[in-house]
Formats: sequence, C-alpha cells, structure tokens
Amino acid sequence: MTPEQAQVRAVVLNEFNAALKVESAPLPEPRPGAVVARVDLAGVCGTDVHLHHGHLPIPLPIVLGHEGVGRVWQIGEGVVTDFSGNPLREGDAIAWSSNIPCGHCFWCVVAGQRTLCESRKVYGVNQRFDEFPRLSGGWADAIYLQPGSAIFRLPDNLSPEEMIALGCAGPTAIHGVIEVAGITAGDTVVVQGSGPVGIASAMYAHLAGATRVVLVGGPSGRLNLAREIGVGDIHIDIFEIPEPSDRVRLVMDATPARRGADVVLECAGVPEAVAEGWEMARRGGTFLALGQYTDRGTVPLNPHLITRKQLRIVGSWGFAEKHYLGHIEALPRLAARFDLRRLITRYDLEDVNSALQDMATGRVIKPVFDLTEN
Amino acid sequence: MTPEQAQVRAVVLNEFNAALKVESAPLPEPRPGAVVARVDLAGVCGTDVHLHHGHLPIPLPIVLGHEGVGRVWQIGEGVVTDFSGNPLREGDAIAWSSNIPCGHCFWCVVAGQRTLCESRKVYGVNQRFDEFPRLSGGWADAIYLQPGSAIFRLPDNLSPEEMIALGCAGPTAIHGVIEVAGITAGDTVVVQGSGPVGIASAMYAHLAGATRVVLVGGPSGRLNLAREIGVGDIHIDIFEIPEPSDRVRLVMDATPARRGADVVLECAGVPEAVAEGWEMARRGGTFLALGQYTDRGTVPLNPHLITRKQLRIVGSWGFAEKHYLGHIEALPRLAARFDLRRLITRYDLEDVNSALQDMATGRVIKPVFDLTEN
Amino acid sequence: MTPEQAQVRAVVLNEFNAALKVESAPLPEPRPGAVVARVDLAGVCGTDVHLHHGHLPIPLPIVLGHEGVGRVWQIGEGVVTDFSGNPLREGDAIAWSSNIPCGHCFWCVVAGQRTLCESRKVYGVNQRFDEFPRLSGGWADAIYLQPGSAIFRLPDNLSPEEMIALGCAGPTAIHGVIEVAGITAGDTVVVQGSGPVGIASAMYAHLAGATRVVLVGGPSGRLNLAREIGVGDIHIDIFEIPEPSDRVRLVMDATPARRGADVVLECAGVPEAVAEGWEMARRGGTFLALGQYTDRGTVPLNPHLITRKQLRIVGSWGFAEKHYLGHIEALPRLAARFDLRRLITRYDLEDVNSALQDMATGRVIKPVFDLTEN
Amino acid sequence: MTPEQAQVRAVVLNEFNAALKVESAPLPEPRPGAVVARVDLAGVCGTDVHLHHGHLPIPLPIVLGHEGVGRVWQIGEGVVTDFSGNPLREGDAIAWSSNIPCGHCFWCVVAGQRTLCESRKVYGVNQRFDEFPRLSGGWADAIYLQPGSAIFRLPDNLSPEEMIALGCAGPTAIHGVIEVAGITAGDTVVVQGSGPVGIASAMYAHLAGATRVVLVGGPSGRLNLAREIGVGDIHIDIFEIPEPSDRVRLVMDATPARRGADVVLECAGVPEAVAEGWEMARRGGTFLALGQYTDRGTVPLNPHLITRKQLRIVGSWGFAEKHYLGHIEALPRLAARFDLRRLITRYDLEDVNSALQDMATGRVIKPVFDLTEN
Repeated sequence: MTPEQAQVRAVVLNEFNAALKVESAPLPEPRPGAVVARVDLAGVCGTDVHLHHGHLPIPLPIVLGHEGVGRVWQIGEGVVTDFSGNPLREGDAIAWSSNIPCGHCFWCVVAGQRTLCESRKVYGVNQRFDEFPRLSGGWADAIYLQPGSAIFRLPDNLSPEEMIALGCAGPTAIHGVIEVAGITAGDTVVVQGSGPVGIASAMYAHLAGATRVVLVGGPSGRLNLAREIGVGDIHIDIFEIPEPSDRVRLVMDATPARRGADVVLECAGVPEAVAEGWEMARRGGTFLALGQYTDRGTVPLNPHLITRKQLRIVGSWGFAEKHYLGHIEALPRLAARFDLRRLITRYDLEDVNSALQDMATGRVIKPVFDLTEN
Repeated sequence: MTPEQAQVRAVVLNEFNAALKVESAPLPEPRPGAVVARVDLAGVCGTDVHLHHGHLPIPLPIVLGHEGVGRVWQIGEGVVTDFSGNPLREGDAIAWSSNIPCGHCFWCVVAGQRTLCESRKVYGVNQRFDEFPRLSGGWADAIYLQPGSAIFRLPDNLSPEEMIALGCAGPTAIHGVIEVAGITAGDTVVVQGSGPVGIASAMYAHLAGATRVVLVGGPSGRLNLAREIGVGDIHIDIFEIPEPSDRVRLVMDATPARRGADVVLECAGVPEAVAEGWEMARRGGTFLALGQYTDRGTVPLNPHLITRKQLRIVGSWGFAEKHYLGHIEALPRLAARFDLRRLITRYDLEDVNSALQDMATGRVIKPVFDLTEN
Repeated sequence: MTPEQAQVRAVVLNEFNAALKVESAPLPEPRPGAVVARVDLAGVCGTDVHLHHGHLPIPLPIVLGHEGVGRVWQIGEGVVTDFSGNPLREGDAIAWSSNIPCGHCFWCVVAGQRTLCESRKVYGVNQRFDEFPRLSGGWADAIYLQPGSAIFRLPDNLSPEEMIALGCAGPTAIHGVIEVAGITAGDTVVVQGSGPVGIASAMYAHLAGATRVVLVGGPSGRLNLAREIGVGDIHIDIFEIPEPSDRVRLVMDATPARRGADVVLECAGVPEAVAEGWEMARRGGTFLALGQYTDRGTVPLNPHLITRKQLRIVGSWGFAEKHYLGHIEALPRLAARFDLRRLITRYDLEDVNSALQDMATGRVIKPVFDLTEN
Repeated sequence: MTPEQAQVRAVVLNEFNAALKVESAPLPEPRPGAVVARVDLAGVCGTDVHLHHGHLPIPLPIVLGHEGVGRVWQIGEGVVTDFSGNPLREGDAIAWSSNIPCGHCFWCVVAGQRTLCESRKVYGVNQRFDEFPRLSGGWADAIYLQPGSAIFRLPDNLSPEEMIALGCAGPTAIHGVIEVAGITAGDTVVVQGSGPVGIASAMYAHLAGATRVVLVGGPSGRLNLAREIGVGDIHIDIFEIPEPSDRVRLVMDATPARRGADVVLECAGVPEAVAEGWEMARRGGTFLALGQYTDRGTVPLNPHLITRKQLRIVGSWGFAEKHYLGHIEALPRLAARFDLRRLITRYDLEDVNSALQDMATGRVIKPVFDLTEN
C-alpha cells in the first residue's frame, strides 16, 4: 500500500454492542502541524470493551483504538521534531500519546493536572468518524495525528512490539505508580490485579527498586505468565484464595514484622478491592486507587482505618503527555528486564470481535492487531 | 497549699460509667528527670466521655485528664530546661504534652510517626493510679510529669486560659491540618465539625492563609460562637440543612467555578461525614480524616471518586511532642487573632460529672476545671 | 476619552539609557479572543530600571510596563469570562498576568514549570511597539491583551490601588514563598531585602502563619514603612548593622535555642546575601533564592554548609498564570491585614523619568502611574 | 578463639598521624541490652583517613572502624530480637548501624533528622578506648554493641562480603540519594565521584530506575571496575577530561534535548565539584551535596543559577538507623544486580597502615580487614 492509495481499512464503532466490522475510509492529507501515520500494531484495552458496550458517554461513529505504534507516512508543514525534540522524518517508527489536553483550562494551566482536562481529545474514543479527518483511531491502517499530538520517535533500542506490549497501561502506571503513589527503593509493594495495568504497575514497582512485589490476581494463566517473565516476587491467586481476609494474612506474612505493605497499588477495577487494600497497607502506608475507572456506586469501607493507620490514599486517572514521555524514557530499561513481547497475542484486523472477546474474558493479556502485512 | 501538704485531690476513674468522685492522693517527690506540677486549669475532652464509657481499652483505676496547664511545683534532679531549651524553674507557668512515645520502636525511629507508637504513655489515659507515682492525670491538684515528658514554659504573651482553650485539639490540628493535610495560602477550605477539633482546625486553616473557610457543623450555639470570634467565613448548620446533598451544593456555590474545596478537613467524628467530604472536595483536592477516632465499622463510600477526582485522602492520629511544640509556637498568633478564652466554660473539680455531661451533649465547647482557688 | 478616539499615550523605550518620552499610538480593535483594556494604574518595577539600562536582551522599541490594573474597554469576539470563569463585560475592573507561556514546550507541558518557558510573551518587555497591536505595555492609556492572556476581574472587596500595590512582586512571592519554599504555621522566617519583593514575601510569610518574621533590609525609610504597616516582627537595618556576621548573630538571638531560621527568603538581589542567608538558616532549614535575577557571576560560598546543615536551597523565577491567580485569591486577606495603599507613590505619566529614577534609588517602594484623570 | 579467652586484638588510634598498631584488650561481658559481637569483616572508609590525620574533633584513644559485619558472640539480658524484629541468637550473622542518636533532642524528636543529633555515639569515632567497654570500634576481633544499637541479622540471601562491600556509603546513599534527593524512574542522573559513596549512589540511582547514569570520576581503575560490574551507563574520566566545561558539555550531549541532568549527585568531596554540578543540572533539576563533609571554606559559586534554573539543592549528612534498615532491605536487590564483592580488597589487621594508605591514594575502592581466620 502506498500513500497514493485512496482507501485504508478502519474498524468503526457505529452502534453499541453490535458486531464490529472493518470499513474503508479515504486517506487524508496532513494539514500544517499534523502527521499521518501508518499503523503497524494496535492494542486492545479493557476500556475498548466498555466503549463497545456503551458504558461510557462517547459520540458515534468512531474508529476504535487508542493504543498504536507505526511509522510516519506523511508529515504536515511545520512538523520538524517529535515531542522530545528528536528530528522526525517520513518512515520513522513512532508512537503517540492517545490524548491531547486543551492546554488552556484550570486543570491544564493552574492545577497542573492535564489528565483532568474536560475537553481532551482522545484518539479512538471521542473523535468522530464522520468528520474530517475521520481516521482518528488506532484500529486502522492509518491514523491522522492532529497538531498538538505528542508524537515520539521510538528509541533505537526499542522494538515496536515492546512499545505496544503495555499499551496505555504503561503511561497510566508511570502516572499512578511513579508520580502519584511513589515507590521508594526497598519498599514492600502489593499490586491488586494482574491485567495490563496490574502487570505494568508491578513492573514499574520493580523498576523503582521495590524489595518485594506481591501480585494478587488471576486467573492462573495471567499469574503464571507474570511469574515466568519475572513480574512479582510472591503471587496470590484470588481464585485459589477466594477469601479476602486470607489474602490479607498472606500479605502480612510477607512483610517485615507483619506490618503490612508500604504501598498498595489497586489495579483490579472492582470496588471491593479497595477495602481489602486498605487492610493490606501498613500504618503510615500508601494506597493508590488506579483501577476505579467506572462508577459502580458505593461499597462498604471503614474510614476509621484512614485515621488510625494514618493512611495516604491517592487516586490517579489516565495519563497525559508527560507520562507518555516518561514511559518512553523508561521503556528500554523495562524491556531489558522483562520480556515484554510475551504479553502480546496477535490478531488480524478482521478478527476484531474475537480480540475484543478475548480481552473481555481475560483469556489473553494484550491482544494486538498486526497491520504490517498489508 | 504547699509541697509539704501530703495530700491532693484527684478525679479517679475506678469503674466505667459510674459517677466520678474526687479522691485524695499523696503528693510524690520528683525523681531525677521528673517534675511535679501544680495543675491550674484542666480540660475536658470528648475522649474523656469515651473513656468514661469504657469505649477504649484502658487500665483501671486512672486519674483522668490529658489536658492541663499549671506551674512547676518541684523539679527533679537534672531538669534544667523545658523541651524548647528555655530555663525551667519552680513557679514557672507550664503546659505539657499528654503523651510520651517510647522513642525506640519502628514508628518512633524509622517511620518518623511517633503518634503511631504502640507503647506510648498517655497521662489521663493509660497510667495506673494504683502505682507510683499515682498522680498521672490532669484532673487533680498536681500531676507527676515523668522523665521524658515534653514540658513547655508558657510564652510571656500567652495566658493559661489561652493555653488550655483548645486543649488537645490544638496540637491535633497542627498535626493533621498543618503537617499532614497542608493548607496553602489562598485555599478554600471546608471544615466538617464544630467541636473543639473542628474549631481548632478552622483556626489553623485561617492562620495558614486560607482565603475561605466554610464551617459545617452544629448545634447553632457552637456555630454562633465560632462566628462571633471570627472562625469560619461561611457557616452551614447541619440541623438547618439536614440533607448532605444540599450542603455539598452550598459548598460548591462558595468555591471558585463551583469546583469544590481545595481541602476538606473532617473533624466530625461520624463515618457518614467522609462520603459527604469526598463530594465537597474538588478534583485534585485533599481530604483529611482527622475525626475518625472510634471504629464504628463500615459505611458506604464510592471509591470511583478517588480515581476520577484524583483525590488525596490522608489520615492523622493524635499528636506527638513536635506538634505540641508547633502549637505552642503558633498559639500567640492564634490568640492575637481569636478570643480563645470564649471557648472555655469553667467548672469546679467537684462538678466533674456535670462537666463530662456538658461535653457529651455539646452544650459547651471546652469545659475546664479551675483548680487555682485551692 | 472614548474608544472612538484614535490615539492614546504610551511610554516607548526606543533607545537604552535615553530619556523616556510619552508618544502617541492608535487604539487597536480587539481581534477574536483579545481584550483592549483602559489602564488606570501602572506600576514601576526594579526590572524596568534594568530594561532601561539595556541589561536584558529585549527588542526595541517597546512600550514599557508589565504591571497594570484597569477596565475592560473593548472585548474581542469569543471572550466571555475571565481566567477564573467569572463573566467579563465592558467596564469591569481587571488586572492581567504580564506573561503568556507558550503552553506547548517541555517546560509548559512536561516539567510543569511554565515560568521556564523560553518563548513566553511578556507585556512591557518583549512585545514590539512597531508591530500590531503596538500597545503591549502598561505605561499607556490602553493595553491590547492578546488571546491567551490571563485576565482577572477584581474581587468586589479589592480596590485597584490594593491590586497594583505589590505589582509583580505579589505573584512572584506566591510562586517563591508559598509554592516553592513553603511556610509552615509556626515558622521563624528571615526575609533578606525590603524592596517590593521583600515586602511582598514578608507579607505572605505572615499570611501563611509564620510566628516570627525578621526583615533584614534598608534604607530606614523602607523599614519604617514596613514596621508601620505591620510587616515584620523584627527589623534589621543593613546600614545600621553593616557587618553580616552581626546580622547573623541577631537572627540567631531571635530564633528558638539560637538554632537559626526555619526559612530564609532571599529577596535582596545581591549575590553576597546568599552566603549570609545560608548562615542564618537553621540546620534542616530552607533557603529560597528569589532575588538573584541578574547574572553577576560568582561569589564565595561554602558548600560544606549544604551537607553539614542538610540545607534545602531552592530557586524561583518570576511567575505564571497560576501564581497570578493565587495572588488574586489571597489579596483580599492581605489587604485586610496590611494597608497596601501605603506602599504606593503616584506619578503622572509625563513624569516617567522621575518615577524610574525614584525606583532606582529606592526612595520610594512602588511608583505608580495614575492614568485615570484623562 | 572462644569467649573464654580474655584478650582480643584491636587497632587503637592513640596519636594523630602516628603509625597504627594492633593492641590487646579484654573481652567485656554484655550488660543488659547490649550485645558482644565477633567481627568478621571490617571496612576502611575515607573518613578513617581523616580521623587518622586529626582532621575531625574526636577524643583519643579510640578503636577505629565504623563499618563491620560479624556474628553474635554474647547476648545481654533482654535482647530478644534485632532492630527489625527478627529473633536474635548467638552465632547469628549481623551488621550494625555505626551510630546511636540520642533520641531526645530537637533533631531526634522534632525535626525528625536524627543524623543531625549533636550527641550521637559513633563506633570507631567518638567512643573512648580507655573507658568501659573499650571495644567500641570495628577494627578489632570483637565489638561491644551498647544498648540502643541498631543491630540487624543478615538476610539469608546476603553474604557478609556483600554486606561490607559498600560500607557506610550504602546507608549514606539511601539517605542522600533515595530519601533526600529522590530518583524518579526514567531520570537522567549524573554522579560526581567514583569512590565508595559515588559507586553506592550510582548503584542506588540504577536501582531506583534511572534511565541514564553518567559517572564522572577517576582514576581509571575505579571507573573501569564500575564499568565492569555495570555501574554507570556513561563514564567520564576527570583525568582524561580535565576541563570542567568539557565535562559539562559531555553531560549535555548525554541528556534529552541537551537540557542537562534531572538529578546530580555530588559524591566527589571537593568543593569545586559543586559549581560543575550546578552547570550539569537541568533547569528545574535537583543537586545533592552528599560529599562535602569537610569544611574547606568557600569556593566561587554563581547564585544566579539557583534562581534562573529554579534549582533544588539539597544536602545530606551521614545516616541514621532508618537508612541502615533501608540499606539492608535493598541490599539483596543490589547484590543480585551488581557483583558487590569485586569492590573489596582484603587485608590482615596487622596491615592496617597499608590499608589506610591504599584508601588514601584511591588505589583500591574498599579495603576490608578479614578477621575470620583467628
């Protein structure tokens, strides 16, 4: 396929819960400041499952896919470097942050929390397929990266597979684990959840010098894979140990003087994990709510623990450009330590419904569409 | 009364829930490193009500009273200065921190959180009356301050009334509001609760430069007094506005762009206040659980808010020497700004049961035993 | 004067060190997103003296003046609210942040330090007079506020005089003193320098709850004024006490146990003040270099102090929108506490050379052009 | 040798600059709370060179040696566990923190900076040989560990060689690099100095997730060894590149967009390194003065850099129990990553003067006395 070809493939979400189909769309020319990228690999994320089910307030139709890695196809006028200042040329292997904060609101300018920007543009989530440039999602042969996008040339020592393997969980973990929660070398860390966010968070806990990482999750296939690639020092299978109090006891057993964990990283996504995590944290410890993305209402929690244990409980929502940059800076170190490629399961774009299904059931960790064979 | 007199009065808790009586005890000689103090004013705290009801695991019998101000009566060998390094002599007006952390455990030495020390000695709480030196509580004519006590000579510009007025709520607020939560000049702050801890916390929020302090509490007598002495800019009476969602709306109305409060200080003590406080905090804001001292079990809380709003939720338990020192350092500024003496209601030691009753009902803010007339 | 009038007055810097003259310029129409403001009061800052002498790399010609307060004259299309979200209408009293960071670079997006943005537009400093919109400085009857400007409607309880009194020293102090250095209620604070930045910093130290503020500066007129309006608790005149070691001793005398200051705020601008400030800080204390704006090369400093005293030394450069917002939020509290208007000395625009001269000699604290009589 | 033997060997410093000799001293019985340890390995530190030269104000005579690892010989009454709460028995392999803060002063109790305690007892530095228990230094067959000592049983996966290899540089780096400076995963870090503190700091920078570690030091033997065991990604030899400005340029070349290092760790000990380090740090970066232990007076430094670059400059002095604990917690991770034993050069106790000489010249990194063959 060459730029002259007028049409490229794209998976379009036209209707919630309906089977997804591959459609065709014209390849746009980049306007000044924009870049058109050929997509090589595109990830499937748990959020895509929610989007497909209509659990989030989004416009329709959209091209799905907020995780991607590819190559520069056409560069718009005025684009000279990537976000880090490296020269950018056609053919360069690149990745891009999926969201573009507005840069002008209270959250962007005053609070310094660009992840809270209310008018963020998000590829694969809130950019309409029926408006120019149409190709604003990653599950397609090409994506139109608007001016203001944070585009990154891949470091020489990083493969596209390693880049896509953690998907958006990587920068999400940089934000939550490294920036908001913080890990100190020597810490004992519990990670609740063994999906992509849990795996990425555990990896970053290791990278930041944790002495013990206890990974609490399931099903066993995920835990086994984590164990095999060296993620987690102690693994607790929630299907084998179904009782929360038993899991809390195991965590206590694993911590010095049975004090509990210095840091608990909640990446499970179920509200009940929060109560369990508060129990697992030591007095004076930190609990990060990283996975509570959907509003499932209230659960019973004991606020007395916050006062008595002097807990520090923090939340973190998604990521912004700086976290994507931090992730790219740290990735070569992660890749040298963990075989990231083992997280990936490849699919053809036509098998989009299977890929989504396998993500929903947790059968695989990271489904990835391989678009390079076109 | 002079040191030669063998006997002094003391209120002893012999049995939970029974009427308290004033007993008599011999005045001890100070051993090396100790100080015997004449108590002039002794405060009654909400915790005393809980102690009386047996809600906390304490030994019996004890002399009650963990808040006091008095004068040096006899100085033990080797005591030359107060905790701040000021020379200490007989007759000096003093106050003292009610608790003595052990100084050797993980919490004292490693975590730097002496309030979590598990073997703290606490005057008026866990020092037995039937063992030397017996007089280890403030509701007595004299108290025996053990070696290791943090004793402070009152600053010249501070009266004993001003010192006792906030009682243990003062250093508790220094710990929670100033050290743990932190207030930045210009902040909009909500204080939940208008008891001693709420009043002290609101005062410290003012002192730290808050631009707006919204005081949510009741009954009206307490709020009126707060208003009269300049504590709080906006007052929300929970009896007049019984619906939490209405109170949340009023807080939103009072904050810039209806974003919510930068900092919410929970000093109410009821678990339900926590859910309400999470709603009142702006995204990226801070919530302090300062009042959840008793374990009343779980309440419904929505953990999604922690992630979505990127909340920072912190807890703070009591205080240690450093907070008492900070309180003494800051008190002259507070006293210059607020008429602290108006918080006090005086009682004779013989009226101990009335004082405790008035604290329990919230009829007064700070009952104080006046022992100076002996 | 009405908008129909084609010409307004402006002080233009055409040549370094030459006498300044009032020129005439056409009043521009606001383009979409812009606002044309009538200037009522415009401040003179020490930086203006440096600009006039050519000490900073700026383009010529420019309209001088980066401190101003005025009223909305004409609103460009699309401007509905001020930066805080308050509705904005013609005639509203307003102030504006003098600089506009680019919002796209590493410093703006990643580092979160917009004050380090290398392509900031600064009114009165780097916006050319010979290009549209020409009127980009405050020493003029009108200023053209470009799209992206942070414009603030004055709070109802704040007068234009109170707004201009601290000039850019106000948000500079918010940035340095409140955000970067941090003041904890109860702190003992030394402020080096009694010019506008020193006065503003001392005020904010008071506002943030400092227990003792030691103001080290001169000449005596400035210190006396500070004393009269309640800024500083202890005043050390550098002309009366010319020896740095004597001043260090006086600071020690004023601090608990002669440990030194918890926080030292350098606002003097002379490199030698840094060595003195390091001596004045207690072990474990904080030193803020807020005044070292010009590069005067090296001075002798003892790095052993950093290690032995475990100092925390921080620097802060100017301010960005968030600090201007913070300043506006805090100003009503400052104004209620200190008579800000006493800092001002009024001049006619025609007396621009006298105003600049009086700023240079320190004869007055804050020269302000009064433009309201036109 | 058995406990019954009355005499053990010890290197005693009787006179500054005189040749050291091995003397004999009686083995003491442990009093309650104390432990007598057999020393197996004892390290030589740069400070020992300074002590020998009389550069520090210490009492004489003393047994030298503040770094040691050994086994429990005799346990005093009441000693049941180590500092971490692990059971402690005769024969257990142990290490111990060389210093015991007083636990009562402002620095210990209020400031939470036990390293600043003015009355710390330090083994091998300020405990007299002519007073009980005499054996208070590590260069001896036995050491008497007073009550209050922080003693640690070695983790099962850590050898005595690995424990001694970093000596006091390990906990010093935990304090300075991890606690005070802080390293964020993804950081670019410069380490100035390749002695024990520089090597330990670089290791901890790696452990904490730094993406690039630039090690600036010499002589070449030290850099080569560092390179061989994987410490540092880029190595700059100060003997090959003698010009500081050239080294600064090389650091710029190694950092993204030539911005400079996120964190600069000064472990060189020469005052001139500070000026160079300020140049190497990026704007908004952190500089740690970890090596400025001796007061060599002033050097030329440019304070303008602090303001303009918004630097954060911090100092760190030695370590306390918590840092020793942190080091022990982190050591197995370090040992798994770097071959720590390669840092060691073994000496007989009788060769003490050679060992000291080799430390002084930098011929070896860590001389260690092997006492196990007795």
